[in-house]
Amino acid sequence: MSNALDNLKYDANGLIPAIIQDHQNGDVLMMAWMNKESLQRTVDTNLCTYWSRSRKSFWVKGETSGHLQHVRNISVDCDQDVLLIKVEQIGAACHENYRSCFFRDLKDGDLVENSKRLAE
Amino acid sequence: MSNALDNLKYDANGLIPAIIQDHQNGDVLMMAWMNKESLQRTVDTNLCTYWSRSRKSFWVKGETSGHLQHVRNISVDCDQDVLLIKVEQIGAACHENYRSCFFRDLKDGDLVENSKRLAE
Repeated sequence: MSNALDNLKYDANGLIPAIIQDHQNGDVLMMAWMNKESLQRTVDTNLCTYWSRSRKSFWVKGETSGHLQHVRNISVDCDQDVLLIKVEQIGAACHENYRSCFFRDLKDGDLVENSKRLAE
Repeated sequence: MSNALDNLKYDANGLIPAIIQDHQNGDVLMMAWMNKESLQRTVDTNLCTYWSRSRKSFWVKGETSGHLQHVRNISVDCDQDVLLIKVEQIGAACHENYRSCFFRDLKDGDLVENSKRLAE
């Protein structure tokens, strides 16, 4: 299993960004960071598992909130330095309880809430 | 215009990741990096303009290839440290001439080409 993971390009901190997308409606839900071990755990458990840069610890998304992300597909970009993970998102992806973290649009220099406002 | 841009959280190198999504079918096409000035140029011109970390220069996507990205919407995530930009993508988003940079899936430890293989 480890070869493709070994060949990914992690940054100077050993991290790679993971874009998380709703596998059903295609909404981009969030972006977070993985290291090789958290990606391996994600593959092994089928649950998105990140590396928290602030807490310096592994973080199974939804472990406490129940808002788990069940992995449906993992893609890698051409440069092998970005991941795109399609998930079945339980509840809200955003810690502010919005379905998607991208709940504000940039409009005429301001941030304006968009239709992602309400969690399902 | 500058307030919301000033309040974004750029990293230690002054950069913020921009996830680029096809505004029509929701496909995630690529991820690249912007700094405040390239984001301002993106807003002003309505064409995605990045900061090339390797060349240390601004980079209007498609300026030479014609594969321009016309901006339809810019969203900001909860932490204000990631951008999601919906675009009308002309031709291939990937420099390898695929429609999306995410043309390989991670399957059983290998990278396998997926249906994004052919550029439109």
